[in-house]
Amino acid sequence: MSLLAFDDVSIGTELPALSATLARADLVRYAGASGDFNPIHWNQSVATAVGLPDVIAHGMLTMAVAARMVTAWCGDPGAVLDYGVTFTRPVVVPLEGGASVEVSGTVKDMNSQARTATVAIVVSSAGQRVFVKSTAIVRLG
Amino acid sequence: MSLLAFDDVSIGTELPALSATLARADLVRYAGASGDFNPIHWNQSVATAVGLPDVIAHGMLTMAVAARMVTAWCGDPGAVLDYGVTFTRPVVVPLEGGASVEVSGTVKDMNSQARTATVAIVVSSAGQRVFVKSTAIVRLG
Repeated sequence: MSLLAFDDVSIGTELPALSATLARADLVRYAGASGDFNPIHWNQSVATAVGLPDVIAHGMLTMAVAARMVTAWCGDPGAVLDYGVTFTRPVVVPLEGGASVEVSGTVKDMNSQARTATVAIVVSSAGQRVFVKSTAIVRLG
Repeated sequence: MSLLAFDDVSIGTELPALSATLARADLVRYAGASGDFNPIHWNQSVATAVGLPDVIAHGMLTMAVAARMVTAWCGDPGAVLDYGVTFTRPVVVPLEGGASVEVSGTVKDMNSQARTATVAIVVSSAGQRVFVKSTAIVRLG
């Protein structure tokens, strides 16, 4: 893995966008991997009974997909020093075709002393923003 | 799911602590679920070649374990409005026995207008803090 150089990045740099499809099977795998077996992530009856339009993705799974855009860009998953999101809308995952998740990001701040970049991440699904204030701080080479 | 009542919580409230074991197999499952197949999470040779003591857990997997403590306490995964961590040390996962992860949390702030609580989360493994400044904002009933 080769870490992206600080000097190759500036405020306004756009990260290569990432598009991912989350299928119901991914949510079941994620339930097993994360230990979060809440049925709203795999059972439509339970999801609709609590007022959701359909099964929704685990928020942390969507966070993981978004983080992949950042780590693919900077070249080292260990370079992500800080990561946080404000959840706004869930990613609704229909049985047929799953949900498409679009991730993009822009460098909003650079710290030359710490050699870090702050990336503002935009995640949307079905034309709606999924997170607001989603930010990662990344160490650069 | 029943959402914890705002009036049953106050600043200083301690959340029931959670202890989890992350085994190598969990990391492999998480790789498949999240799409992050970086070999530092499943191949000891690669991990040590890049300077790590051994295979390490995905940071987002450890975040997911920590989030479970919060959602188990508040009773509704959808009530987590905001979640962020600063990564400090990785969770090192030996082949034998896996890694033990200890999660605890304390309510640090309450907002009666928004009916939210801010939880400071402490995550440690092998006696070392894994995150600093790990915080979740939770909507209460």
